[in-house]
Amino acid sequence: MTKFQVTILGCGSAMPTTLHNPPSQLVDMNEKLFMIDCGEGTQLQMRKFKTRMSKLHSLFISHLHGDHTFGLPGLLSTLSMLGRTGDLNIYAHKEIDFLLNPLLTYLGNHMSFNINIFPLNPDRQEVLLENRSIKVTSFPLRHRIPSNGFLFEEKETPRHINREMIDFYHVPVKQIPDIKKGADFLTPDGSLILNRHLTYPGNPARRYAYCSDTAYAPEIVQYIEKVDLLYHEATFAESEIARAKETYHSTARQAAEIAREAGVKKLVIGHYSSRYSEIGTLLKEAVAVFPDTELAVEGKILSL
Amino acid sequence: MTKFQVTILGCGSAMPTTLHNPPSQLVDMNEKLFMIDCGEGTQLQMRKFKTRMSKLHSLFISHLHGDHTFGLPGLLSTLSMLGRTGDLNIYAHKEIDFLLNPLLTYLGNHMSFNINIFPLNPDRQEVLLENRSIKVTSFPLRHRIPSNGFLFEEKETPRHINREMIDFYHVPVKQIPDIKKGADFLTPDGSLILNRHLTYPGNPARRYAYCSDTAYAPEIVQYIEKVDLLYHEATFAESEIARAKETYHSTARQAAEIAREAGVKKLVIGHYSSRYSEIGTLLKEAVAVFPDTELAVEGKILSL
Repeated sequence: MTKFQVTILGCGSAMPTTLHNPPSQLVDMNEKLFMIDCGEGTQLQMRKFKTRMSKLHSLFISHLHGDHTFGLPGLLSTLSMLGRTGDLNIYAHKEIDFLLNPLLTYLGNHMSFNINIFPLNPDRQEVLLENRSIKVTSFPLRHRIPSNGFLFEEKETPRHINREMIDFYHVPVKQIPDIKKGADFLTPDGSLILNRHLTYPGNPARRYAYCSDTAYAPEIVQYIEKVDLLYHEATFAESEIARAKETYHSTARQAAEIAREAGVKKLVIGHYSSRYSEIGTLLKEAVAVFPDTELAVEGKILSL
Repeated sequence: MTKFQVTILGCGSAMPTTLHNPPSQLVDMNEKLFMIDCGEGTQLQMRKFKTRMSKLHSLFISHLHGDHTFGLPGLLSTLSMLGRTGDLNIYAHKEIDFLLNPLLTYLGNHMSFNINIFPLNPDRQEVLLENRSIKVTSFPLRHRIPSNGFLFEEKETPRHINREMIDFYHVPVKQIPDIKKGADFLTPDGSLILNRHLTYPGNPARRYAYCSDTAYAPEIVQYIEKVDLLYHEATFAESEIARAKETYHSTARQAAEIAREAGVKKLVIGHYSSRYSEIGTLLKEAVAVFPDTELAVEGKILSL
């Protein structure tokens, strides 16, 4: 199976602490790096965890609060100093122009590459990026300002040929592509060999969903059903549920309820409020509802 | 003596590394914190080194390159989240408006305090801030874009009374203020008691100068003569002197020559190019010219 992993660069929230950096993650799909959110210090975290800047394919910014965006100027100018030449696509709400334009005008003449901004649709699900092996979709979350979640999914690969059986039945080479797609084989003497005897299943199409920042929003379940891994914000413990509601954030228990409703395989929580120096309570509250939960930590790599 | 110390928050240069953070320093003069430059991650460094954000008095930005400014949005919005109410003065080249306005407009309604921008004069020395105990001056450096150095100086305190001698000569209380200022005392029987027998020297007026970023520029010596501590950039080793000239930076030896010419007490060098994973060469080259040199390191506190 090809690589599909998520590296946590930061899993704190608005107020940075010595324990957690502002939000950012890298999704590595077969050696292409997709960044989600870019809080202050993200480029330093990339260096710390030895991720390769040259592999950065595109950026996905969930919403325009500072803790998710203040690392952009530094990252973009470093990429330019490193001599990047390929275009960089940034998927973000359209108001990002307003934040980036002064920087880009200021650095403009010295930028070594082009930046393309693709505006996110804050109201409905949309495909952002699709090629023959992967697809990235955005969908609306529920926050104080427009905020979107992201779904990274592989496409199903064709079935793998069982070479021994293909030889045994003398399947002609020209029929192999159809058999990879699932066709059965009719032998010259009229026997039908079922596809499952000639092939192994293709690689499973793994899926990763990112939901932050968001209030408890059951309507997002439809977009993330049965994903292999769900990252859902868990800013507060249950004792702060009123504060969570007021600020359009989620509690750890609410994150776990979304994971349970969506029938996901595994949940990872993050975006911890700076008030928690100890996050064991958040884990405990989530696990009570959805046992296969773990805590995000800077530097943690989650493989799908 | 009151506290007068410099904390190095970052002493790298344009390209952040795992060894050094982008430039920023705190000058603590009697519990007032003055920040010089604010590279990405500066607020995280303040937390790491347990410096108190509530004591931040004003900001001095030497020039507008990203490695000296990209930490501003995060710092300013954190100060606001912490509920700062006092105005914050920022001394910087006037184009900083262009970089900060989008942020301030964006966060505007939520900012808890006012920011006042005081434009630096890139062409001549100017007093930026003066009260009865301290004075801060800016002066031109030589860089690719306008860049200013800063001089932080205490004012001389009045001489200290030698209580025993004052009693011995029965000096009347009403004459004490004049004697603190240096006056001699005429006894009732006509003897002149020299001031130096009645007082001790006041506290020395300590001075700290910051010169970064700058090419080798002997014309700055006039502004920093005999300071107690000079921070001078030393981006390159002597082997890269051509590159230093081309990019308007200094070598470690050039920094030391400025220190020697200015007759400073002590030199600290920093702003190391990311090419040096080992900075012993820079120290060696500087010490050969000016022995009392030390290397800046994140977290180091230099007391004057």
